[in-house]
Amino acid sequence: MTWLDLPADTLFGITNLPYGVYSHGSEAPRCGVRIGDHVLDLAAALAPDPAAEAFAAPTLNAFMAQGRDRWSAVRARLVELLTDEAHRAAVEPHLRPLAEVRPHLPFEVGDYVDFYASEHHASNIGRMFRPNTDPLTPNWKHLPIGYHGRSGTVVPSGTPIVRPRGQRKAPDETFPTFGPSRRLDIEAEVGFVVGTPSALGEPVSIDAFPDHVFGVCLVNDWSSRDLQAWEYVPLGPFLGKSFATSVSPWIVPLEALEAARIAPPPRDHTLLPYLSDTDNWALDLSLEVRVNDQVVSRPPFSTMYWTPAQMLAHMTVNGASVRTGDLYASGTVSGPERDQRGCLMELSWGGREPLKLDDGSVRTFLEDGDEVTITAVAPGANGTRLGFGEVTGTVLPAR
Amino acid sequence: MTWLDLPADTLFGITNLPYGVYSHGSEAPRCGVRIGDHVLDLAAALAPDPAAEAFAAPTLNAFMAQGRDRWSAVRARLVELLTDEAHRAAVEPHLRPLAEVRPHLPFEVGDYVDFYASEHHASNIGRMFRPNTDPLTPNWKHLPIGYHGRSGTVVPSGTPIVRPRGQRKAPDETFPTFGPSRRLDIEAEVGFVVGTPSALGEPVSIDAFPDHVFGVCLVNDWSSRDLQAWEYVPLGPFLGKSFATSVSPWIVPLEALEAARIAPPPRDHTLLPYLSDTDNWALDLSLEVRVNDQVVSRPPFSTMYWTPAQMLAHMTVNGASVRTGDLYASGTVSGPERDQRGCLMELSWGGREPLKLDDGSVRTFLEDGDEVTITAVAPGANGTRLGFGEVTGTVLPAR
Repeated sequence: MTWLDLPADTLFGITNLPYGVYSHGSEAPRCGVRIGDHVLDLAAALAPDPAAEAFAAPTLNAFMAQGRDRWSAVRARLVELLTDEAHRAAVEPHLRPLAEVRPHLPFEVGDYVDFYASEHHASNIGRMFRPNTDPLTPNWKHLPIGYHGRSGTVVPSGTPIVRPRGQRKAPDETFPTFGPSRRLDIEAEVGFVVGTPSALGEPVSIDAFPDHVFGVCLVNDWSSRDLQAWEYVPLGPFLGKSFATSVSPWIVPLEALEAARIAPPPRDHTLLPYLSDTDNWALDLSLEVRVNDQVVSRPPFSTMYWTPAQMLAHMTVNGASVRTGDLYASGTVSGPERDQRGCLMELSWGGREPLKLDDGSVRTFLEDGDEVTITAVAPGANGTRLGFGEVTGTVLPAR
Repeated sequence: MTWLDLPADTLFGITNLPYGVYSHGSEAPRCGVRIGDHVLDLAAALAPDPAAEAFAAPTLNAFMAQGRDRWSAVRARLVELLTDEAHRAAVEPHLRPLAEVRPHLPFEVGDYVDFYASEHHASNIGRMFRPNTDPLTPNWKHLPIGYHGRSGTVVPSGTPIVRPRGQRKAPDETFPTFGPSRRLDIEAEVGFVVGTPSALGEPVSIDAFPDHVFGVCLVNDWSSRDLQAWEYVPLGPFLGKSFATSVSPWIVPLEALEAARIAPPPRDHTLLPYLSDTDNWALDLSLEVRVNDQVVSRPPFSTMYWTPAQMLAHMTVNGASVRTGDLYASGTVSGPERDQRGCLMELSWGGREPLKLDDGSVRTFLEDGDEVTITAVAPGANGTRLGFGEVTGTVLPAR
């Protein structure tokens, strides 16, 4: 038990300890770990360990690059510092209330890859985007489909989202028109942050997933469905996605998620050896999507077809290297039920079945001023529950 | 005229002055400018100007971030230093023969975007990948189609290319198989390097192209056609491209290309205002592709349907920002003639019409040991010709 006075049901107890970057007043951003509603200044708390200097930085990258053994050692030390009453006097001065600090993007993003790993989501989108064909393409159950997104527009939770403008063409129009997106959407996703890099030309085996992936965050992959529908054939989504991708401020260490590991779903085909699960890396995260503070969906990450270990193995099997700070996201998390769908495109079935909100308004896609928040919880050690910290953003009118 | 003793037909005379990064022996990499077959140490040659410190760095990013006025001022100063005999004694000691130095990746890559801007290439590929439909998708003449590539695997010229492995499925096979790519290809492209960043939410207008783009390089977008064909529907190319992208070591400043500017081709539709050319930014670059030192193609960049100014305007019209170091490439440059096609997929028409090489061998796609080199020339000021420095790479067997 920690010597901090935390409620028994806290989502940010000693079994979680997620990492982030924060600033206070005009001080430079630095790395911290969240405990309850406080953040601990890591460089100060871990001094005089010289390796603690990596935390006096505006990103987690230097620490993430130190590798799995160091991640474990720091975590063990933090548990010691926060549970042993003997350390209290030295550590307590380095705690600061969350309400007093500003969160920043926790890592410098290398490459950003977005997968498409939910069978329910891919099937629903396929039915809407390509109505007269099989909803899943022939490759879908043989490999985790993914594509590169724009890393330069990955923004921290809280960043306002300006409604994008661009080309869109309705099926009954001859030519495209230009203007603000009429079908602005969210995608509730789970993100995986690479710590340990790999060498060019050397695939990362599926077993090496926990050696390379530092931790997990939440991602809102804002999407403009009208821009996307017009542009995406044949080379995939581009401007329909690249205007902004929001990430949660706290990176939950993979080590904290041992109790959340579950068996992946049965697969329809025998997978090629490089994708064969030798270990259980499906994760039992329960997401929640709120629009203007009303819950509109509860997507279960446990229902994903592909695991993050498979995604990493696939992404590198051609010899592509990963770097510290690379982010890859799961794709929209959608469960089999209607109220488990992770985007408005599915929730309103392409706009044909509007959602009713408690204030009496209805939604097909996002309106200016809407605030969207995604949260998640997962089982933690010793019967605890872990929180992920929310990723939120408010839609501003097009400029 | 420069005081250096250069041949009259040099491609790297005083009207070119491309920037790069090089190292000598065990010294740290630093920025230089190429003149003839020498490289000038910029930090040393421009001292004691305090702004010259940006060149004592392993990338051009700090200099590129300083903006267009500074780019012009440095270029003017370099012309002065290299033409006025009075500077010779001070400058000459900072010249080093190219043969004695090692080129490096000239900039740290932010996002990498690959366009698809040649009508001839897109039509040829469309005919082969989607034989029973229109070769160009309905959007193609309304917007420059593009997608994000992997910036972490952009490598400098000379880096060996390990043949990628992955999933591929022939049309007559029921399930995919795994192994080394059987259809390894090149794509001869022209790359544009962003210097001045833009703000999130603020489109870059088509007129602002020369304010943001620092310079131009050559790109070989290595491609695995069998991996690509199986994976790319519906979200675009991924592992078929992400194993490596090579760039030439010298960035030709946009300012050096004034004499290369030409009118873009006539367009079939009236373009939306944000893509309307108000200025001529088509460029008269003549590319040359060699396989094992034999010329196999001479792609004319002048035949591209979309200009780099249109690409930048499109890429940011949704509010996506650009960063210093962002690279965007034109897509394969292919002209209307068979010997102007910029990739083997087109040159061998999907493998059905093998190329004969002078050594008696034939090629459909690349074989292990093949060396591919792309070069280009363009008109320069005062009737000169500018060279781009080659981008080269040799195929190593799959591991």
